[in-house]
Amino acid sequence: MQQKNHQVVLSRPLNGVPVVEDFRVQEVPIPEPGPGELLVRHIYLSLDPYQRSAIAGRHMASRQPLGAGAMPMAETVGQVLRSRHPGYREGDYVRHFGGWQEYALSSGEQTEVLERDRAPLSAWLGVLGMPGLTAWASMVALADVQPGQVVLVSAALGPVGSMVGQIALQRGAHAVGIAGSDEKCAFVRELGFGACVNYRSADFLQTLAAALPEGADIYHDNVGGQMLADAFTVLKNYGTVILCGLMERYNDPARSKPLDLALPIVKRAVMKGLVVTDFEDRRAQFMDFVAPRIADGRIRYREDRAIGIAATGAHFARLMRGENLGKSVVVLADE
Amino acid sequence: MQQKNHQVVLSRPLNGVPVVEDFRVQEVPIPEPGPGELLVRHIYLSLDPYQRSAIAGRHMASRQPLGAGAMPMAETVGQVLRSRHPGYREGDYVRHFGGWQEYALSSGEQTEVLERDRAPLSAWLGVLGMPGLTAWASMVALADVQPGQVVLVSAALGPVGSMVGQIALQRGAHAVGIAGSDEKCAFVRELGFGACVNYRSADFLQTLAAALPEGADIYHDNVGGQMLADAFTVLKNYGTVILCGLMERYNDPARSKPLDLALPIVKRAVMKGLVVTDFEDRRAQFMDFVAPRIADGRIRYREDRAIGIAATGAHFARLMRGENLGKSVVVLADE
Repeated sequence: MQQKNHQVVLSRPLNGVPVVEDFRVQEVPIPEPGPGELLVRHIYLSLDPYQRSAIAGRHMASRQPLGAGAMPMAETVGQVLRSRHPGYREGDYVRHFGGWQEYALSSGEQTEVLERDRAPLSAWLGVLGMPGLTAWASMVALADVQPGQVVLVSAALGPVGSMVGQIALQRGAHAVGIAGSDEKCAFVRELGFGACVNYRSADFLQTLAAALPEGADIYHDNVGGQMLADAFTVLKNYGTVILCGLMERYNDPARSKPLDLALPIVKRAVMKGLVVTDFEDRRAQFMDFVAPRIADGRIRYREDRAIGIAATGAHFARLMRGENLGKSVVVLADE
Repeated sequence: MQQKNHQVVLSRPLNGVPVVEDFRVQEVPIPEPGPGELLVRHIYLSLDPYQRSAIAGRHMASRQPLGAGAMPMAETVGQVLRSRHPGYREGDYVRHFGGWQEYALSSGEQTEVLERDRAPLSAWLGVLGMPGLTAWASMVALADVQPGQVVLVSAALGPVGSMVGQIALQRGAHAVGIAGSDEKCAFVRELGFGACVNYRSADFLQTLAAALPEGADIYHDNVGGQMLADAFTVLKNYGTVILCGLMERYNDPARSKPLDLALPIVKRAVMKGLVVTDFEDRRAQFMDFVAPRIADGRIRYREDRAIGIAATGAHFARLMRGENLGKSVVVLADE
């Protein structure tokens, strides 16, 4: 066991798309758990686009911008090293909000003991984590996708988008993805999507229309802005739009393009806002749907991994440039 | 019977809020119905905000802007003077799209014979017309308002807004209105609304919040723009928003404020686009709900009347400045 804890903190307040110089590593003592606390050694650290807006204080989870020296929050998976909490034993694998660091204390709040044999450990941050629950809430709880329907999803190689499409496929629907490169689109098609369109291609709107000759019944929106406006061009009348993320504005809200209300009116669209924390009490139902399908390969996932806490800042910058090929994860220790 | 037909046409293309100089009256012969046609003498002419965007070619019903000399379209109620159509007899009262003129031919398309004894003739343009059907579609078909719920509606003295509130009240819900003057709000309260807030008052947002201490379950949006953003401040989580009109932009779309998508996401709102023509096949159900309630006074309405075809332009300008006190109607002839 290491003798020190390493954290990644901001070297300055973020401005626009993050760069590696925005972050620095600092060494601090490994904390000792007090009464009712446990100490977790992190194995995997989750990087997600919403963390960018949380750092800026523009997220539901965080209304105060982080200044220089502050550590961003993140979900982590790890192992209990010491426990003074009756609900946790040494050796338990847990998921909690541990932050951008190698070790963290927990009071037990939002700290879940993982069923280690149900899925690979890192999957609890992606397909079995908040992104997976988000996709399940979208397709099952809010859109209630039906066999034969056509589902369109942006950021289709990301952990939410890839699960949206695969859950739709598992329910007998068709899935069409949108992603930011031909390489991403090739991976999206490997996941079983019927088509994937590169939004950076010159003929994006024509290709999108060709991929959806009868239009989309459901669009899952991770992005907002121009992407949502573009999706409306192929949404069927009476189609459903799940509003779930605003990737377009996380780096720079001043450049954000809001929604022209004529679009949903003309299409008679039903739009539903999704906040994943609303679905915590349905996590067992979600797990029963997803975990067996991961075990037997019906649902697959890609990860975009970096190694070591010092790589966290650069890996986050890569994510916020949209260059990640799958769920962004930092590996902090051996399992 | 007059010997000539008088029409109101554009004297120039519209730019921004209409003024009386934008319109002129012209005299033309009364047309003769050909085979399969009928001639209608108009008694009431309906002025509605959507006509502003139709004139500009920005409406679903009209994608070509009208130039100088063109006559705006409008629904009218009148009496059949001569019929060469087997479905209509001389003396029948009908509603059709007759336009801004005293007489018009009809081929029978979208021309409905009115049950004269069911309601006052002008009501077929308002509470029993497209505005009433819009309100019914919103409250019954899309929002399905339940007893005890709280409904907020903008443009609450207009024919759609006043019906939205009254249908909500008839279904056991509470109604709170927003209107543009204290005078309008006094009339809105007379219709049974529990409260009405003047959006031009300095403390609008505070007064709105005070009128909705537990928030609104449903917001019917006629306006878009800042009004919709303001309504989100009092919408309950999981509330419903019916997107139905864009009054804010009909005069000048360049000044329009689109929707910040964070608002519906944070509120987990369900937003539904409404196009009234989708509900034509449910008109009988709508009539059975509204007509008896008009007859016995449970549902009431106000009209903002002008007399004579020459007053049409000025009356439309008044409507588009938001100064009308109720459904805007031009009286063209005695009943």
